[in-house]
Amino acid sequence: MSRAASFTAAGPADPVGSAGPAAPFWLRAALDRDLPHRFARSATAAEGAHLRTEEVPGWLDGRRAAHRFQVDRIPFAQLDGWSFQEGTGNLVHRSGRFFTVEGLRVTTTHGPHRQWHQPIINQTEIGILGILVKEFDGVPHLLMQAKMEPGNPNLLQLSPTVQATRSNYTKAHRGADVRYLDYFTDRSRGRVLADVLQSEHGSWFYRKSNRNMIVEALDEVPPHEDFCWLTLGQVAELLHRDNVINMDARTVLACAPFADAEGVAMHSDTELLSWFTSERTRHDVQAERIPLNQVPGWERGERSIDHEDGRYFSVVSVSVHAGNREVTGWTQPLFEPRGLGVTAFLTRRIGGVPHLLAHARVEGGFADTVELGPTVQCTPSNHEHLTARPPFLDAVLSADPSRIRYEALHSEEGGRFLNAESRYLFVEADETDAPLQAPPGYLWVTPLQLSRLVRHNHYLNVQARTLLSCLTSGAVRL
Amino acid sequence: MSRAASFTAAGPADPVGSAGPAAPFWLRAALDRDLPHRFARSATAAEGAHLRTEEVPGWLDGRRAAHRFQVDRIPFAQLDGWSFQEGTGNLVHRSGRFFTVEGLRVTTTHGPHRQWHQPIINQTEIGILGILVKEFDGVPHLLMQAKMEPGNPNLLQLSPTVQATRSNYTKAHRGADVRYLDYFTDRSRGRVLADVLQSEHGSWFYRKSNRNMIVEALDEVPPHEDFCWLTLGQVAELLHRDNVINMDARTVLACAPFADAEGVAMHSDTELLSWFTSERTRHDVQAERIPLNQVPGWERGERSIDHEDGRYFSVVSVSVHAGNREVTGWTQPLFEPRGLGVTAFLTRRIGGVPHLLAHARVEGGFADTVELGPTVQCTPSNHEHLTARPPFLDAVLSADPSRIRYEALHSEEGGRFLNAESRYLFVEADETDAPLQAPPGYLWVTPLQLSRLVRHNHYLNVQARTLLSCLTSGAVRL
Repeated sequence: MSRAASFTAAGPADPVGSAGPAAPFWLRAALDRDLPHRFARSATAAEGAHLRTEEVPGWLDGRRAAHRFQVDRIPFAQLDGWSFQEGTGNLVHRSGRFFTVEGLRVTTTHGPHRQWHQPIINQTEIGILGILVKEFDGVPHLLMQAKMEPGNPNLLQLSPTVQATRSNYTKAHRGADVRYLDYFTDRSRGRVLADVLQSEHGSWFYRKSNRNMIVEALDEVPPHEDFCWLTLGQVAELLHRDNVINMDARTVLACAPFADAEGVAMHSDTELLSWFTSERTRHDVQAERIPLNQVPGWERGERSIDHEDGRYFSVVSVSVHAGNREVTGWTQPLFEPRGLGVTAFLTRRIGGVPHLLAHARVEGGFADTVELGPTVQCTPSNHEHLTARPPFLDAVLSADPSRIRYEALHSEEGGRFLNAESRYLFVEADETDAPLQAPPGYLWVTPLQLSRLVRHNHYLNVQARTLLSCLTSGAVRL
Repeated sequence: MSRAASFTAAGPADPVGSAGPAAPFWLRAALDRDLPHRFARSATAAEGAHLRTEEVPGWLDGRRAAHRFQVDRIPFAQLDGWSFQEGTGNLVHRSGRFFTVEGLRVTTTHGPHRQWHQPIINQTEIGILGILVKEFDGVPHLLMQAKMEPGNPNLLQLSPTVQATRSNYTKAHRGADVRYLDYFTDRSRGRVLADVLQSEHGSWFYRKSNRNMIVEALDEVPPHEDFCWLTLGQVAELLHRDNVINMDARTVLACAPFADAEGVAMHSDTELLSWFTSERTRHDVQAERIPLNQVPGWERGERSIDHEDGRYFSVVSVSVHAGNREVTGWTQPLFEPRGLGVTAFLTRRIGGVPHLLAHARVEGGFADTVELGPTVQCTPSNHEHLTARPPFLDAVLSADPSRIRYEALHSEEGGRFLNAESRYLFVEADETDAPLQAPPGYLWVTPLQLSRLVRHNHYLNVQARTLLSCLTSGAVRL
């Protein structure tokens, strides 16, 4: 069924009162000013209409116990359906679907490294990451899923309502239907509150985008034992715990309607957009897919593909046995990063207004040269052999504990990455650590400005979106 | 010099009063609410402080006469520095710069044509299209250039202040400096009012973007005989004449600050963005560059490369002799379309509010699947052999003259396209021509909504931007 058709059919039937009494019934306000207030109400609701926050870890443990779920590392030779393609050495599935592991050569005009080669995941199909919303007692609640992913260090975390690749929902692996999917594909079932294509890890994926959606259900939503309704305030509380809210949930939360005040900022939105345009223009990034067996500096063994110096990441493979997944068992490759990441925004109050120091980052897999990342995004152990330290890393690592406004360990997408953990932080800085005259490639922006950008695709990278989710949910109030 | 550095250096020194008395001097309003009003003032100024509108055609004739400028068609063999590359047959310049003519294979999942092959221009470097603004007698004026381009049917048209490829301004063809360029590259010289990367013709260019900029000069601007200051109202008047305002000027004008009312619309901005996301998602477009000599259905002669049925366009070459260009003579390839294009928005007042019927178009050269185009964008003669007519074409061609709200002939970029003319129209429609329940791929949007989208890259294609420039300039008031 055509989504466009179902969308326009639902069009004029759902007017918004705030268009004012003068507007005919088929018109609505172009901007919904009420929505951010409703989400703010959910963010201040420390408890919801269902599970209490303190009960969530126990509930997650229960779900973990209810499902047999075992992940074992296996040699590549034991992969079922996956093999190294003759000629290229690319790691591919016999169906031609899911994803492939290929090589990438990146050439760029700026930065300390002007050319590098690496393995990369090529997954062109666009998945849906969707959170379903419904009001209980006048407060919007989010339907979160207890979802197993083989790469998560604790296997099970809270995910969006729907987390589906196109292969998932078109049944490429012949499994069960994706629960609640129709709320996101059939516009008559819900009202869209956010819907935007966002990039994923540009260092590990070649031009991967997922569709981030928030949809409000218009009717009763049938319950299911692996799902629970939580307020934004409850999710915020859980974001303070390590490895509870998964990456897919965090990126969707970053797209949640945020305060609608226009506010003041060190740089106007026009200046911010202009700076971003100049960053996209000054970086000339050529990213070229090459055969995996032609990536210099990487070696393929029986159980892993590794960098010759043991840095960055390895390509490994696992077998998975599970009870509540779309299929009951499978094998697959995963990327396993070496070392713990550090991902942080330095923050300052400028004229009393909280600002974040954003970084225009080049990642080889981005669709378009640069996206905005946090101030610091690196794996320190990858830089130990270099004389130059990543900018601002020491300001984060040596910060007095009183300056750390947020700190938690989160893992990246457990469907593709194995134990890919990073310490996420907000750290208060001063003029010595982070001057108002930011160096080239960095700019002070407000959370509201980032929130306005995240409505559009490919402005904020996935790490910046994880940190933004701490602000949109109210987990961090700067 | 790093643009980012000069930008942040200029940062806190230029506060905006509308941030209010409570804001410290280094903060400014995130959104500049005053700017659209200043541009609206310029749009209502039918005459400016300098040349009168009726004098502009005479002034253009004078500039045309003052410069010797002759364009002659030549066989490919007489191209200087250009040749067909061995092996690929690509048409390339010996410097490796400027652009190349290659082949493209496009495979898509929707529409009447699921795969096609064609020649395409590959020009990866990002140019600057910039209009300089300055107030005279309290009214913003635009500095327009009388610029020769070999492909324009009348050779000389009004262009932006600056229209420079990176080859231009880094002196790849060793010519004169680009006049006024520093206003756009050195942030201390002006205040940026708009700055965004926009696509160009996706049917003729492979992923071409130009940087569209509007900059307000902070100091005196030295005059030059090929440039004149005009109000937006004067430019609007000239947009009613055939082939006066060139494409580069039109796309920059489309990015001009527009009325800041949020307004009402048939679909909220969130719904519009969601529809756009669903259009990007449902189209799977694979565009693959291939050697020019492997493009089936196209034949290379001594003077042109043509489609076997004589449709679409030809690749030709010309020699140029000019006095006021960066260099005094050169040869180059051009794309020469067959037939006159028709490019039109159907319009309707919905609940009293003007709406346009936008089309989510696939063009093979787009960076990302689809962009929003006008309701109709085609060359009718290319469709004469087909049974299916392009949707809404007949509603445009058969419209009663009383319904034509705007009509003018404009040409596309004269530096790459030869006599590429299209009739641009706004045509009032009714429920019979264009129902409120738009078919899949089409959506009713307001001019304000398009104006909000055009601040971000790759939402509106260049044809939609030409029509939007008629609205931002006030040439058309729906």
